[in-house]
Amino acid sequence: MNLSKKIVTVRGKQIGGDRPLICTPLVGTTTSKILSEMEDIIQKEPDIIEWRADFFQELADSSKVIETAAAIRKYVGETPLLFTIRSEKEGGQSISLTEKEKIQLFEEVCKSKIVDLIDYELLYEEELPYLRQVTKENGIYMIMSYHNFHFTPSCEEIKDKLLKAESYGADIGKVAVMPTSTKDLLVLFNATQDVRNQLQIPIITMSMGELGTLTRIAGCIFGSSVTFAVGRNSSAPGQVPIEDLKVALRIIQNSTGN
Amino acid sequence: MNLSKKIVTVRGKQIGGDRPLICTPLVGTTTSKILSEMEDIIQKEPDIIEWRADFFQELADSSKVIETAAAIRKYVGETPLLFTIRSEKEGGQSISLTEKEKIQLFEEVCKSKIVDLIDYELLYEEELPYLRQVTKENGIYMIMSYHNFHFTPSCEEIKDKLLKAESYGADIGKVAVMPTSTKDLLVLFNATQDVRNQLQIPIITMSMGELGTLTRIAGCIFGSSVTFAVGRNSSAPGQVPIEDLKVALRIIQNSTGN
Repeated sequence: MNLSKKIVTVRGKQIGGDRPLICTPLVGTTTSKILSEMEDIIQKEPDIIEWRADFFQELADSSKVIETAAAIRKYVGETPLLFTIRSEKEGGQSISLTEKEKIQLFEEVCKSKIVDLIDYELLYEEELPYLRQVTKENGIYMIMSYHNFHFTPSCEEIKDKLLKAESYGADIGKVAVMPTSTKDLLVLFNATQDVRNQLQIPIITMSMGELGTLTRIAGCIFGSSVTFAVGRNSSAPGQVPIEDLKVALRIIQNSTGN
Repeated sequence: MNLSKKIVTVRGKQIGGDRPLICTPLVGTTTSKILSEMEDIIQKEPDIIEWRADFFQELADSSKVIETAAAIRKYVGETPLLFTIRSEKEGGQSISLTEKEKIQLFEEVCKSKIVDLIDYELLYEEELPYLRQVTKENGIYMIMSYHNFHFTPSCEEIKDKLLKAESYGADIGKVAVMPTSTKDLLVLFNATQDVRNQLQIPIITMSMGELGTLTRIAGCIFGSSVTFAVGRNSSAPGQVPIEDLKVALRIIQNSTGN
């Protein structure tokens, strides 16, 4: 049912294909905690694993980051690996890196070619073209994302963010917003449904928080191609445990035309 | 999360209360088949049982109908019992009764006081006031419903049907429509979300067919107070097995604020 024309195929997994992919975050603070988390998560067979490196205590040491990424890769094998640094301002953890240092770290990670995708905020428009170039040179897919942890912007604004991601050359556009009423879930669904026909790239959309749980289960019906689920620990409010998500997706699979 | 001001309490079950109720239909063609179906269904603990009497071969014999209703009541005990005759025109079975004969049968069933609720189509505006009077005199709750098995009318039209149900004195308004695209699910959700604040009565809404499955699971988030699930055999396209529905409702319960 996803009408996006372009499918992003990462290690055999189709983002924007017929079925929504499940992405599970790693949020450990040390290499050993991450690897222990990994052991749990890999058994639950997510489609994509996201390393939320902003939780990693040694983020400022790029060699430690590369080393840990390599250790994660050993575990995940052919499961696509997404590398994300979400700073506090973007709803992530408090990190010590400046935006320039973050870009440098992304560059090193891209050059290592250990990860398959990175996620970067649309907020930093100045940095986007350079990071897009770096990712392209190294064959790394780039998600450009918009987060709003306070409210849900209008349908038009949500669509604009996703159109902007495409205009900056994103491989995938992502929007995660906070609902303050059930009506906001419909705003997100409506925006997703409308914009997917205007875009050539796959999109990922969700409403966060407990109120938004439905969008993590049903977003695929309206065009969202990836949903984030809890492996062992959640990285954002409202994430559903992967086991529950799989059951719910199976139940509504008829609705997605699969 | 249901903001309807009036809660209809039937044998202790709250329609329009904090959680959506699950209604399971009986679609057997003979008394013995119905009772065998009943044995299966009652173990699955639905909140409401609907006898879809249009499936019953002896519908023209009112004493047989009353007798079977009494036998069903014995089985269901204190589970609320909904009595429905949905003719072919309304998406049900081919029945031999004229509209007048149907009203007579409803009257006898109401007078027997075996059932708790009846469902009657908004289509038959001329008959509505009389049947409303009969149900009131006998303490039977009345659902007034609109079905469209071909398409999904506009948001305004859906709202109008539910407002009309209230204006005719319905205890509960119901709309079941057929989606032809995923966009139609959003039309139904939007209408439900909007109208529930305008009404004093609880409402039941759903999109039918496989494409509509999501609305049977998530309608409660937007204000639908009852969802129909398959016990042993479905009575309408797209109904989810009660076991699956219970799991899905549990998973999204955070979204409904429960």
